[in-house]
Amino acid sequence: MQDRTVDRQTILRKANDDFRWEGVEVLPYKEDERALFSAVSKQVLFSGPDLDGELRYFEIAPGGFSSLERHEHVHAVLTLRGRGHCLVGRQIKRIEPYDLIVVPPLTWHQFRASFNEPLGFLCMVNAKRDRPQLPSQQQLDDLGSDPEIARFLLNQLSDS
Amino acid sequence: MQDRTVDRQTILRKANDDFRWEGVEVLPYKEDERALFSAVSKQVLFSGPDLDGELRYFEIAPGGFSSLERHEHVHAVLTLRGRGHCLVGRQIKRIEPYDLIVVPPLTWHQFRASFNEPLGFLCMVNAKRDRPQLPSQQQLDDLGSDPEIARFLLNQLSDS
Repeated sequence: MQDRTVDRQTILRKANDDFRWEGVEVLPYKEDERALFSAVSKQVLFSGPDLDGELRYFEIAPGGFSSLERHEHVHAVLTLRGRGHCLVGRQIKRIEPYDLIVVPPLTWHQFRASFNEPLGFLCMVNAKRDRPQLPSQQQLDDLGSDPEIARFLLNQLSDS
Repeated sequence: MQDRTVDRQTILRKANDDFRWEGVEVLPYKEDERALFSAVSKQVLFSGPDLDGELRYFEIAPGGFSSLERHEHVHAVLTLRGRGHCLVGRQIKRIEPYDLIVVPPLTWHQFRASFNEPLGFLCMVNAKRDRPQLPSQQQLDDLGSDPEIARFLLNQLSDS
């Protein structure tokens, strides 16, 4: 049997400098009025009808942070560049390149870049997935009642 | 609603030196008697009942090569370290860190490391997938009838 026809365009997409790729659009995230996230871009690296998962690259500018959210689907994260902290449930972890982070179902989470370099990470998700839920003010207050989480949410964790 | 209970052990797995991870087993590939692959290790980074995809890290030692195979499921590959070449269908591409490679369904493919450093790459696949097919001698001969592919299969492509 012959190989199926292979589109010459899609086999290889070269990496450009600074974690950009040929043919991959850099999608800026609009700033949220409640400032639930800031200074994040997204690139969808792999997605398609034959794939049950998607692989995205997110980059958070120095001092920025991803959306504080939760959802039924799992985030499987591999950091590629930079340092920062993540909140997963009520745990705060310092993260560095190549660390692996799992965000379990319905678990509040947020990623924050350090102040001196971007934090870039891969995130694998199911192609079919639910939409994120954002916290109510009461849920935010509940999270912030933990002093360590309050410091995380106020961007007051040290880079060291 | 409370967050679901989160197992403290599984949220973060730190990267160790040299592309190894806490709690991730390094699985050597047994050498094949037909030498269809050589000097490859595999680490499963993300896999589980809540994930429709799997993310694995493969590393090919200098001069080594992955299995020459094809299958219905798609490989979505992101190189992380080293250089080398890949064969996808009848195309041969030089690959470097962070390049993106898609192996379409039922397409013969193989990855080969350069001779001076390991080639490490992430590979996302569907959790539910078919088993790889190995080439018959006739299929190998057919591939090798292309002089460029023959040089690739004989590990005769230059590193430059």
